[in-house]
Amino acid sequence: MEFNIQSALQILERTPFVIETMLQDLEEQWTHTNEGGDSWSAFDIVGHYIHGEKTDWVPRMNIILDDDAEKHFVAFDRFAQFSDSKGKTLNQLLNEFKVFRAKNIDQLKLKGLTEDLLNRTGVHPTFGNVTLRQLLSAWVVHDLTHIYQVSRVMAKQYEIEVGPWKEFLGVLK
Amino acid sequence: MEFNIQSALQILERTPFVIETMLQDLEEQWTHTNEGGDSWSAFDIVGHYIHGEKTDWVPRMNIILDDDAEKHFVAFDRFAQFSDSKGKTLNQLLNEFKVFRAKNIDQLKLKGLTEDLLNRTGVHPTFGNVTLRQLLSAWVVHDLTHIYQVSRVMAKQYEIEVGPWKEFLGVLK
Repeated sequence: MEFNIQSALQILERTPFVIETMLQDLEEQWTHTNEGGDSWSAFDIVGHYIHGEKTDWVPRMNIILDDDAEKHFVAFDRFAQFSDSKGKTLNQLLNEFKVFRAKNIDQLKLKGLTEDLLNRTGVHPTFGNVTLRQLLSAWVVHDLTHIYQVSRVMAKQYEIEVGPWKEFLGVLK
Repeated sequence: MEFNIQSALQILERTPFVIETMLQDLEEQWTHTNEGGDSWSAFDIVGHYIHGEKTDWVPRMNIILDDDAEKHFVAFDRFAQFSDSKGKTLNQLLNEFKVFRAKNIDQLKLKGLTEDLLNRTGVHPTFGNVTLRQLLSAWVVHDLTHIYQVSRVMAKQYEIEVGPWKEFLGVLK
């Protein structure tokens, strides 16, 4: 499947609502437990989405499209949510994610992205030159990877309780 | 986390709405493409959920709880959705899933399940003796494993488009 803005928007616009439907009003045992060690809970993941809205996808799009900008992206802080989410409820974070995402979608739509613009590049701290098309595709897949992660983190809470079914349930492997 | 009915219901009641929020009104490129070979598309997965509502989880619960029933479960048909879903739209399937799930939740709630009842057993075609607690836990994790799968199947459609980001996106591995 080739990237195009309309198909990408279909995913980007719904992700905050998918995450909200998955998580709102759940017991904290489901939402605040991680996979062990320094892995992330569903609560942590929502904070990570919000930090991405503030500092990653659309700010990087703007670096690529702004004629005057220095083209090097700022490195993304994968741990910012641990301080940013402190003292907030999950429902607060779910709302924040919806608000920031809606603003970013508005910005994206205003750019009137053509094929030429999608081929412009910026400099990623690890990968070097990347195109706007790759950045926006990665934004979509990033949405899906964390839906994937949230469902896995929650499933693991019943890893023992399912008994022999573990063998048949891919998410537990 | 130990199984209990209230926590399990929090997931079971929302799954059809999570799947609906993920999939309704999406382009068929997102919903009708699989991961290659005889793997399943999102459309196939919704049909699989419906077949589970009709023949798997609650029918097996009833086998365990019915004093007169033969205790062997009927083997589950993992391919029934390919015939059952034929000619239907995804939105039809999403509605069917909601209707069947709501009826099954009603049945579950009417059972007034105690610890004693949760410890009763039936005979699984592969695993042998399993408890009702394990069956209901597996129902919850089964819900989550297919949310996990839907997000992965859709993410893979952009596997090429993300370019070097593939390395950072767990769902593509």
